[in-house]
Amino acid sequence: MSIADLQSICFQPIGLIHTPHHDLVNMPIQPVGAKGMEGMIKLNPELQEGLTDLEAFSHITLIYHLHEIKGHELMVKPFMDDKKHGIFATRSPKRPNAIGISTVKLSRIEGNRIYFEGADMLDGTPLLDLKPFFRQTDNRLHAVSGWLDEKDDKMAHSQRSDDRFTK
Amino acid sequence: MSIADLQSICFQPIGLIHTPHHDLVNMPIQPVGAKGMEGMIKLNPELQEGLTDLEAFSHITLIYHLHEIKGHELMVKPFMDDKKHGIFATRSPKRPNAIGISTVKLSRIEGNRIYFEGADMLDGTPLLDLKPFFRQTDNRLHAVSGWLDEKDDKMAHSQRSDDRFTK
Repeated sequence: MSIADLQSICFQPIGLIHTPHHDLVNMPIQPVGAKGMEGMIKLNPELQEGLTDLEAFSHITLIYHLHEIKGHELMVKPFMDDKKHGIFATRSPKRPNAIGISTVKLSRIEGNRIYFEGADMLDGTPLLDLKPFFRQTDNRLHAVSGWLDEKDDKMAHSQRSDDRFTK
Repeated sequence: MSIADLQSICFQPIGLIHTPHHDLVNMPIQPVGAKGMEGMIKLNPELQEGLTDLEAFSHITLIYHLHEIKGHELMVKPFMDDKKHGIFATRSPKRPNAIGISTVKLSRIEGNRIYFEGADMLDGTPLLDLKPFFRQTDNRLHAVSGWLDEKDDKMAHSQRSDDRFTK
């Protein structure tokens, strides 16, 4: 099969993410910059049984649709740099497929409601998948992180979004 | 908006992942169990500029469609346990949305071809997104990992898949 033959792949959201963020501007750009910012997922009640035993995990990885992003750019200036990089060398939202991932801190689960800390996505974001974070397999302690390694390690903790990807 | 009103979200694959795995059975179940197993992504050539500066990263996170998985189950026995858990407390592939994520080791990039190590997905897997791994924001060193914490920390390095999710 060649790339030209690939068909679209469609997903039905499994829930909605509610957060304090209603505007793409002045948002935290990563969960580490969203300390104390609470989010709540309303999972489709038909899927609630799938949450069994999840509460014993401290962190979960959310995969979601960046639903307010229009179009994409191949070269972008990410929020943490003033130079352009290829979109796939950044986490910028204006990607060919507007998919976001965030690993957040699980607070508690009440029925089909999942409360978490580290909300760095817009209110009303459609959730596509939710996975437990596995300390044993998901950490990469000695990863080399290209252009980001030239910045202050704590930059993502304080940097906020601006309007560069809102149009 | 309520969950019932949510519309399907469709993505066009950005490339195809080629790996040594042609069967869902006897595969590594995580990239840490796929040491030395090489994969190669053929990116849509129209998106090649988006790879600029990516080669300076040691690890990349692939988001892809688990294209051979049919249907889903809410309670599953994951490969690393003999007890059932909710699907969202596992990384099992038979999920409501068949989305996989793998953080793999980037070897080199040649044009629109991205070579990597740690291939734990099937040959011919459609790639949806590719993100750089940020050491500064993506590690969660002290995460608590529920049922997995009761197992040997190295279990994912040696465990292989069987036929439990092939039907």
